[in-house]
Amino acid sequence: MSSLPVPQRARRTPASPIRKLAPLAQAAAAAGTKVYHLNIGQPDIKSPKEFFDGLQQFHESVIAYEPSQGSPSLCDAWSRYTNRTLKLNTKPEHFQITMGGSEALLFAFMACSDPGDEVLIFDPTYSNYIGFAAMSGITLIPVPTSIENEFALPSREEIERYITPKTRAILFCSPNNPTGTIYTHKEQQRLIDISKDRNLYLIADETYREFIYDGSEPFSIFHLDQACENIIVVDSMSKRFSLTGSRIGCLITCNEEILKTCLHFAQARLSCPTLEQYATAYMLDHISDDFVKAIQVEYRHRRDTLHHALSALPGVTSFKPHGAFYTLAKLPVENAEEFARFMLSEFSFAGATTFVAPGAGFYCTEGRGKDEVRIAYVLQAEDIEKAVELLGLGLEAFLKR
Amino acid sequence: MSSLPVPQRARRTPASPIRKLAPLAQAAAAAGTKVYHLNIGQPDIKSPKEFFDGLQQFHESVIAYEPSQGSPSLCDAWSRYTNRTLKLNTKPEHFQITMGGSEALLFAFMACSDPGDEVLIFDPTYSNYIGFAAMSGITLIPVPTSIENEFALPSREEIERYITPKTRAILFCSPNNPTGTIYTHKEQQRLIDISKDRNLYLIADETYREFIYDGSEPFSIFHLDQACENIIVVDSMSKRFSLTGSRIGCLITCNEEILKTCLHFAQARLSCPTLEQYATAYMLDHISDDFVKAIQVEYRHRRDTLHHALSALPGVTSFKPHGAFYTLAKLPVENAEEFARFMLSEFSFAGATTFVAPGAGFYCTEGRGKDEVRIAYVLQAEDIEKAVELLGLGLEAFLKR
Repeated sequence: MSSLPVPQRARRTPASPIRKLAPLAQAAAAAGTKVYHLNIGQPDIKSPKEFFDGLQQFHESVIAYEPSQGSPSLCDAWSRYTNRTLKLNTKPEHFQITMGGSEALLFAFMACSDPGDEVLIFDPTYSNYIGFAAMSGITLIPVPTSIENEFALPSREEIERYITPKTRAILFCSPNNPTGTIYTHKEQQRLIDISKDRNLYLIADETYREFIYDGSEPFSIFHLDQACENIIVVDSMSKRFSLTGSRIGCLITCNEEILKTCLHFAQARLSCPTLEQYATAYMLDHISDDFVKAIQVEYRHRRDTLHHALSALPGVTSFKPHGAFYTLAKLPVENAEEFARFMLSEFSFAGATTFVAPGAGFYCTEGRGKDEVRIAYVLQAEDIEKAVELLGLGLEAFLKR
Repeated sequence: MSSLPVPQRARRTPASPIRKLAPLAQAAAAAGTKVYHLNIGQPDIKSPKEFFDGLQQFHESVIAYEPSQGSPSLCDAWSRYTNRTLKLNTKPEHFQITMGGSEALLFAFMACSDPGDEVLIFDPTYSNYIGFAAMSGITLIPVPTSIENEFALPSREEIERYITPKTRAILFCSPNNPTGTIYTHKEQQRLIDISKDRNLYLIADETYREFIYDGSEPFSIFHLDQACENIIVVDSMSKRFSLTGSRIGCLITCNEEILKTCLHFAQARLSCPTLEQYATAYMLDHISDDFVKAIQVEYRHRRDTLHHALSALPGVTSFKPHGAFYTLAKLPVENAEEFARFMLSEFSFAGATTFVAPGAGFYCTEGRGKDEVRIAYVLQAEDIEKAVELLGLGLEAFLKR
């Protein structure tokens, strides 16, 4: 065996709770079991025709590098789209195009911190933040939120208790992955106030901005303060336009220092994929607002279906999420990962089972979330009903073992 | 002005020496000057028909995530292609698909080191390694090589002088960017021996493996030892197939610990672009070896043209590079960056000028390379001749100021 050293960074980067049980699901599927995937935020909505149209318009004979900031046409188109749909006044030069929202988050972490620095997050949190933090050498400090008050933001005093001299930023995601919670304008203003007063960066992950179901309008933190140099917004094409595999995201800030640093990171990795930048720019200039409206109607239906079905399961605690397409549910089990494994490797009913993501992987606090699962309602309503029914039957079987 | 803290990481991430003068080139072009781009490794060769054919074969209606390791069909196809063309015996499960060679390098750095650790490189070096090191919080330790002996690798004793208790890896690139030097089998064996004896990882950047012009066969470090757990190979589609904008690269190793860590990094960023993975897998299974052979013939001609033209310039020191498509040339100026800026903003002849990359940005040692420039011979031979002629005229004008 090799005696090569294994760095702490490797130990601190967890397997994705969303993907780590995938081999069990593959085995179940290979054995002929129909697996309902509620583990991963992979929408089944068709990608926009306008994206494919854009691809067809690409006629270059060389797939060459684009500028490191992003193709000028995409920066322009994305800024225009943002301004039109959100009634904002962003500028193309404040955009850094990235490989999905993922790279924007990694750049944001790295641009505002050194190894050893701290970033506050609200716990539970999007599990991949933990990976980006490990890669950047920074420490995530979890500020607890809880299912009992639908994961609302804590008070200013409570949040400030976690700030230390090493704190460099606060990161939040609204509508939230994994909880489905939308932070109110007042809550987001609270974060701006803290950031300004304590000289911190404020990273707003707005990937799910349009996934809102109860009458409110899509909201960006830029609506509260577009000139604030503390704010870094992360955005993505992945979910809104059902283009997860296109890997097109961006970081938006008017902070020139952050833009410069991110551009240097971007120069090191040269450029984002050319074809997708081209197709996305075309799409943003041609797509109708009906695409997003139709998605909202569809997901509201799915959300209602899920909530109704989950509420009927004995011993399961959940609430009606207002945004994104996830919810966390507390199950009447001690170890939800064990249950998720059981569902994939021991249980099936009428040739089918359900894949959910263990909740503990979404918490930065050891011991929390062990009895929870994250459910992504990215399937059609009738499939969601079946999947939750299987979940109920699985729970019965699991508890009777 | 904002009083937000600027981290050391930002200060340590330099602007790309290849791209930082691009705004001057854009201004020159906007003013009507024809700019010959010898600054950047963007080949003008047409991307393979088989890549576009593969794109046309993609008929999914949702651009969905692929597995984080990479699409199974691409891992299979790349391993098959590597085994066929190099007579090796790689396995698809030893491949981690990445966003260009860039991400593979970042993953390799992060997987074998913690912030504060050291990685040896040979100076001059590919400038973007400096960015990846800053992002990872590691320190590059430059082992000097020099133009006088065509940037050959130093002796074992000389290399070992730079190893400290913090050293985790040795990184090398052959054929080399920016020097064009090919390390001999004996030199590469030396690096394996050191790595094994001193318990270090050995990262081999083989992006330019097929760009060899003097009769040798494409060579991988795996030819010396395919079972060595110290070795991490970085490979890329970008240059070999003129697909720089496709952002498809990979990392290959039989070290299970490194593969696991890289998979966790990959899970955090979810997946690589779906369309390019699909098209690349198709291309690798269908492309003829003639594509690479034709490129070799074309680049040998360009190399010879460049070398001949540079040799005729008074006061310029250069040598005939054996691989990749770069060379470093020493100019009769004190400050080659000043000269490069002069070429773009003050000089033109018959409406044209030449863009070269200042050499200092390719050195990790302060003060070295100030009188050098990197030249990428990625244009057609007649354009290279014109570009070097302009360089000569520019030098005359610059020295006469």
